[in-house]
Amino acid sequence: METLKLRKICIDTYRENVAYLHRDCPVYRSEGFQALSKIKIHKAGNGTPVIAVLNVVNDEALLARDELGLSEQAFAQLNLSPGTAVRVEHARPPASLKAVHRKIAGERLGLDEYRGITRDIRGNRYSKIEIAAFLVSCSESGMERDEVLYLARAMVETGKHLDWSEPLVVDKHCIGGIPGNRTSMLIVPIIAAHGMLIPKTSSRAITSPAGTADTMAVLAHVELSPDHLHKIVRRERACLAWGGKSQLAPVDDILISVERPLSLDSPGQMVASILSKKVAAGATHLLLDIPVGPTAKVRSRAAALRLRKLFEYTGDHMGLQLEVIITDGRQPIGRGIGPVLEARDVMQVLNNQPDAPADLREKALQLAGRILEFDPDVRGGQGYVIARDILDSGRALAKMEAIIKAQGKNPETAVPGRLQQPVLAGATGTITGIDNMQMAHIARLAGAPMDPGAGVDLHLKLGEQVEQGEPLYIIHAEFAADFRFANEAAAAASGYRIEAAGPTGEQG
Amino acid sequence: METLKLRKICIDTYRENVAYLHRDCPVYRSEGFQALSKIKIHKAGNGTPVIAVLNVVNDEALLARDELGLSEQAFAQLNLSPGTAVRVEHARPPASLKAVHRKIAGERLGLDEYRGITRDIRGNRYSKIEIAAFLVSCSESGMERDEVLYLARAMVETGKHLDWSEPLVVDKHCIGGIPGNRTSMLIVPIIAAHGMLIPKTSSRAITSPAGTADTMAVLAHVELSPDHLHKIVRRERACLAWGGKSQLAPVDDILISVERPLSLDSPGQMVASILSKKVAAGATHLLLDIPVGPTAKVRSRAAALRLRKLFEYTGDHMGLQLEVIITDGRQPIGRGIGPVLEARDVMQVLNNQPDAPADLREKALQLAGRILEFDPDVRGGQGYVIARDILDSGRALAKMEAIIKAQGKNPETAVPGRLQQPVLAGATGTITGIDNMQMAHIARLAGAPMDPGAGVDLHLKLGEQVEQGEPLYIIHAEFAADFRFANEAAAAASGYRIEAAGPTGEQG
Repeated sequence: METLKLRKICIDTYRENVAYLHRDCPVYRSEGFQALSKIKIHKAGNGTPVIAVLNVVNDEALLARDELGLSEQAFAQLNLSPGTAVRVEHARPPASLKAVHRKIAGERLGLDEYRGITRDIRGNRYSKIEIAAFLVSCSESGMERDEVLYLARAMVETGKHLDWSEPLVVDKHCIGGIPGNRTSMLIVPIIAAHGMLIPKTSSRAITSPAGTADTMAVLAHVELSPDHLHKIVRRERACLAWGGKSQLAPVDDILISVERPLSLDSPGQMVASILSKKVAAGATHLLLDIPVGPTAKVRSRAAALRLRKLFEYTGDHMGLQLEVIITDGRQPIGRGIGPVLEARDVMQVLNNQPDAPADLREKALQLAGRILEFDPDVRGGQGYVIARDILDSGRALAKMEAIIKAQGKNPETAVPGRLQQPVLAGATGTITGIDNMQMAHIARLAGAPMDPGAGVDLHLKLGEQVEQGEPLYIIHAEFAADFRFANEAAAAASGYRIEAAGPTGEQG
Repeated sequence: METLKLRKICIDTYRENVAYLHRDCPVYRSEGFQALSKIKIHKAGNGTPVIAVLNVVNDEALLARDELGLSEQAFAQLNLSPGTAVRVEHARPPASLKAVHRKIAGERLGLDEYRGITRDIRGNRYSKIEIAAFLVSCSESGMERDEVLYLARAMVETGKHLDWSEPLVVDKHCIGGIPGNRTSMLIVPIIAAHGMLIPKTSSRAITSPAGTADTMAVLAHVELSPDHLHKIVRRERACLAWGGKSQLAPVDDILISVERPLSLDSPGQMVASILSKKVAAGATHLLLDIPVGPTAKVRSRAAALRLRKLFEYTGDHMGLQLEVIITDGRQPIGRGIGPVLEARDVMQVLNNQPDAPADLREKALQLAGRILEFDPDVRGGQGYVIARDILDSGRALAKMEAIIKAQGKNPETAVPGRLQQPVLAGATGTITGIDNMQMAHIARLAGAPMDPGAGVDLHLKLGEQVEQGEPLYIIHAEFAADFRFANEAAAAASGYRIEAAGPTGEQG
């Protein structure tokens, strides 16, 4: 067998290993490889192999006939110098793929099978289409609740596990879907001011106009090394950081990289994803927020209850103390949608400003109250009052300022996007509907979260009266093209429903 | 919005459109693209857009910051000169993806939904992972038989349709899985010699050691233009060509490019795939061969019957006269496995040589007899005798020679691979099992079909007596590495089961 010279191809194939061979490469011809087939690459002689999907190159400027190219991630995994002699051969499908085929056939899988699947995914032995096949086979009613537990456990096992050496490590999580819902940035300082440990890491926005990490980044650095983070948490009892660089349940990140473009969002995957991350992060107690509403992720109370049971069952068997709270998800929370506008709302609440959005404050207090009751010394029903006292007294603000300082204050002063356009009510009446998805869509088109100042600032919420021609919300953007897209989308559908005193509803 | 300069990137991404943007490209930054997201590319001003999955490039030698790269297939589709100013924007998910999500949720889809899905796949608007999601959602028991019919119809509609302007256009098809099963190369000349129209196109091997097109290529050219093929069929009433370059049911080829690496093989997809191709090719009558055996694709008679019903239901509703024949799939057919060895078997039968493999001859006569009975002038039960007469009289050989001449005789004389190694019986007894999959595996390792002379030549078949140390089969290869792999695989498991006179079975 001939060897090939290793070459790095500076293409980011995003969590999929891709190998490049020239079509006239002697190895390609004699081995009978095919494009998209999987090959195994290892150092001539020995070495741990890397598995990659094959792309065929027809240009010697890109790749010589005696070279093997690897995309950035695959090159990093193989960890050899350019020019090293490597051998390639056909890769057998990963052993656990047989279990995926059984799952496709409708069978129920056991813990060891989920372990095999997560190990192979962790080892980059699955191609994107194999991951897609696994995810679809587990979607919707495809997973028994024991299987959700097995998958969650297996995902925890395939990564690092933090141990805070404390009996009470709390976390909170919202399943998402509600724009402006930045309660974590209020809850974390309240809980930490009470003295409980709450090392909160969050994601950046995937399909939404802002994740907690994006909004927190307006105020402070959020990309911190694990060591640095650990020190901050020890000192401040809390952090508000980006969780992306951790090695906690790394299989979850790989699965999400395929779920996202597929828009898959099955209950089983969601529960396994959330709980595996929390357990790996060392949480002992978790409060889960499930917003329900006609344009939320969960549309009915019945569906929310089913999801709650699944969270409870899985959490209990993973040794996590879990409380689920079903909240009002009929409209966005607060006024701002987009990092800068949301950070403004949060700081208004922390500063006890009279014009601070009341719904954001109220929801944060409700959730914080429930978390405080995880503390054995807090009497049942007293959590809310304690939370309110911490907020009203300014202790929450002081804690937030300490966290910002510890993580490193963002030196730039953030301002809402300079391009501004009000969207006006088309009729006079009562606001009876605000579409979460449409508001998120408009804010994203305006540039959020990439441009932190972009987004939507709501002037009116459900139940309020409006006169025709009065502004419903203001669109903010930084760039003209984004601004135009967002305005066009708002003109097509404002996202608001206005009902006149009479019986007819009208799209505002 | 800024424009980018179009550049062709000579990478064959195999039926998936891939676009390349430099990480520091201003458009990439301002539009908030993500790797693996889908983008829409079109000529500045106007033009039909092309949808592609985004890969991010970190090397200006590969791609400048003001360039947009397209993989070969995508570049060809956009059909613009390098350097043309193009615009990119976010691509919305194809509209039909909503139906795929409903299918994942277990719903039944209608004809219009299958039409939408096949049109979007045909238009290259699906990524590989979206196709994988669709295929998995349809797998196993996931499709009602009406849905199989809808998918088949929709696949026919999204391609060209041949019309031979004759009332009787026959075809035959085997669902595959049996090495050496080259009956088409005997049936086609027999049927054409009788005067029936049989324009047979076949695939090349995908996972097998040879497809009919590979074996026919040993004797004649098989890659013919549609016009040329049409002339040959008009003159000879038949052809034995490769079907790969036709535009018949092109969605099927795209689906297969994902099914293959996933090893998906669901009955619904198989039926829709086969019947859509046949109807698009203008067949009015079809004989389907379903081999059954412990190492065949279909393992039980019950499964074969279920599959037969599905073929019959779908075929009837597509206006195709369809006969299904369930055959003995317990072992390979004939002696040779691999293009040259199989072509030798076929020519021995056509030449009526006394040592020609009797099972290949017999099976071909059975199938040809059933096809001849599609002719209203052939009395029921007389087909076999007519077929045998055509073969014994040399008329089948003469027709095969005419077809070879018409398609263009292969000038190279093919010989079995020069490296040869017998695999010997480990025990004395009766041969009670030959593993189709292991024999195919060994032949592929030996180099088939890439090296036409490579493969396996069986000396003994089921029921025959063997002495310990006697050759079971000979491995043929062209290259030392392949030869070694094949020998190692045969040493690990010969694929033969030998039972002594006593009650114990033994792996030979």
